[in-house]
Amino acid sequence: MADHEVRSTVGSEPSGLAQLRWDEPPEGPVLVLLDQTRLPAEEVELVCTDVPGLVRAIQTLAVRGAPLLGIAGAYGVALAGVRGFDVQEAAALLAGARPTAVNLGYGVRLALGAYQAALDKGAGPQEAGAAALAAAKALHRADAEASARMAAHGLALLDELLPGGSHRVLTHCNTGRLVSGGEGTAFAVALAAHRAGRLRRLWVDETRPLLQGARLTAYEAARSGMAYSLLTDNAAGSLFAAGEVDAVLIGADRIAADGSVANKVGSYPLAVLAKYHHVPFIVVAPVTTVDLETPDGSAIEVEQRPGQEVTELTGPQVSAAGWGSGGGLPVAPLGTQAYNPAFDVTPPELVTAIVTEEGVLSPVTGGGLRELCARSRQVTIS
Amino acid sequence: MADHEVRSTVGSEPSGLAQLRWDEPPEGPVLVLLDQTRLPAEEVELVCTDVPGLVRAIQTLAVRGAPLLGIAGAYGVALAGVRGFDVQEAAALLAGARPTAVNLGYGVRLALGAYQAALDKGAGPQEAGAAALAAAKALHRADAEASARMAAHGLALLDELLPGGSHRVLTHCNTGRLVSGGEGTAFAVALAAHRAGRLRRLWVDETRPLLQGARLTAYEAARSGMAYSLLTDNAAGSLFAAGEVDAVLIGADRIAADGSVANKVGSYPLAVLAKYHHVPFIVVAPVTTVDLETPDGSAIEVEQRPGQEVTELTGPQVSAAGWGSGGGLPVAPLGTQAYNPAFDVTPPELVTAIVTEEGVLSPVTGGGLRELCARSRQVTIS
Repeated sequence: MADHEVRSTVGSEPSGLAQLRWDEPPEGPVLVLLDQTRLPAEEVELVCTDVPGLVRAIQTLAVRGAPLLGIAGAYGVALAGVRGFDVQEAAALLAGARPTAVNLGYGVRLALGAYQAALDKGAGPQEAGAAALAAAKALHRADAEASARMAAHGLALLDELLPGGSHRVLTHCNTGRLVSGGEGTAFAVALAAHRAGRLRRLWVDETRPLLQGARLTAYEAARSGMAYSLLTDNAAGSLFAAGEVDAVLIGADRIAADGSVANKVGSYPLAVLAKYHHVPFIVVAPVTTVDLETPDGSAIEVEQRPGQEVTELTGPQVSAAGWGSGGGLPVAPLGTQAYNPAFDVTPPELVTAIVTEEGVLSPVTGGGLRELCARSRQVTIS
Repeated sequence: MADHEVRSTVGSEPSGLAQLRWDEPPEGPVLVLLDQTRLPAEEVELVCTDVPGLVRAIQTLAVRGAPLLGIAGAYGVALAGVRGFDVQEAAALLAGARPTAVNLGYGVRLALGAYQAALDKGAGPQEAGAAALAAAKALHRADAEASARMAAHGLALLDELLPGGSHRVLTHCNTGRLVSGGEGTAFAVALAAHRAGRLRRLWVDETRPLLQGARLTAYEAARSGMAYSLLTDNAAGSLFAAGEVDAVLIGADRIAADGSVANKVGSYPLAVLAKYHHVPFIVVAPVTTVDLETPDGSAIEVEQRPGQEVTELTGPQVSAAGWGSGGGLPVAPLGTQAYNPAFDVTPPELVTAIVTEEGVLSPVTGGGLRELCARSRQVTIS
């Protein structure tokens, strides 16, 4: 494996935290990722010099989060191009690395399209690689700008739905800087509310099995100086029942043409709870997350992940403690089977609004989604 | 601390597993508990020679589960009586060890009542201690019999609600032999269905933060030869959405006079999901769990447990690995606050039926509960 690690200390400036960056040291261009599996204990950079290394980083969730996967996919194609690897093969490997994440395929196609278009115009492979890289960088910039626009639209929506301006927001999984070229999706809205002095509390679901809420969202909330509390996913019901949740803000991994939302497992139960308690359930995602080729929720392929994620405790500290070869700490009896879907699907009737960089869709309808996509310049690039 | 440990090997006969037993070795009478915090990795017996040791075992959840706590409380009073400790003080310590568990107070009062009655009749302290012990043993036996009756009533209800007899049952936390003088409450119903050849699958919620589902229910299911699958609590929504759950079976820690059910945190979200998907939500508990003194759900005191249970991974293997002094493995940033209620409260309108040893209550109403309690001999003892 052609990756190596660069360690930095925890506690550096938030602005020093690059979740993903392209670098061109003398040895040749590389894609540098913050290894999210090591957070919050350690900030370790993972340097990818080839596509198989990047695919491994995607599959082990060292890099994750819908928009960031798109950016990583585009840079991966560019890496193959500028290093002279087989670009078609690289694109196929990357696009198949995680089946539910529509943005990954989008980023891959975008960079591959730029590469092919350059070749078609008579460019050599090196020049075509540069075109793929330019496309990846453009996507990276566009995603940062989209984050900012989602945050503004989302905050305006919160203020409209919840007059009074002291919001208690529940979120699930991780949707901040660590998933994005900018400040993220759902978390960016909460951050905007915090900066405006209108966030009373961020309730952070720990998000089993991989604890992205505990490890990553709590880390980002702490760095941002928010008032936040962590809870087990199953304690959210008590908060709803006590009237302690004003809104749910989550991201999305894929939005089907009918408005069904695939997101981290545990989102759907929150949607049902929110409906039962008349609390707005708001999905924040860039337009690239919408997949008009997927007609409805039943057509979304949900990734099933290894049962060991449930039957064993894993995490950086567990690995550091040296149980087995990268294995976890068993909590269930040996031989226990687990049901471990990575995502679930929330039907449009449970979604109060979808916030995108192009504006807010509420109520969520197939027609409204098509209009939003048509308006988006990003989608017309592809 | 006056406890010591006796280790036995994992994998012995199920019948050899005594979750709690009274013993009278030459050194004096003791209460022997299976240390549930060590399961499933190790079967370790904890020998309590005094009441503070037993209170510690209750608070650290070495012994847990509503009916078993009642039995432990009664034996604890007896232990104080026969060993010549201050019985009133012992009763107060035991009754306050966990505030939500109504059975604990019931068992303590039962044994204390027998002790006092003996004193009132002119018995000496030694003889009064023997009377308390007889009351504890009677409660232990009665609970085992109640288990068997709940299992029979519960299976009849399942068969009535779900004709066809191939039940896929979802359960939460642990409600089997480890919580009871017999085979348990909700788990005993699933076990009866399994023995009758009518359990297709037991879906086992892992039950964060302490993973009683993964550690204890999976252990009991495996020992019983059931077809079972473990899942993160937040994956239950996907099972409901896919039509894979025919019924939810849970226990209860306290049932208020209006039929509100306090049970392990995560029960209420399952009740809301079950309602939304028209799936029966069935509570299985002995009549001693009903507390007519608590008028409704809002009057139930919910125990808040330490935040470290959420911010750190704990468990027997973590302790065995030697992180800190009995501390866990941090997963969230240092200083993270956690919201960690031990229980939640499900209102009667979300409960399809309450199964007790005296019969099935459906629909759940305050009047029905009062009738059920009046019918129960156990309650008239107290």
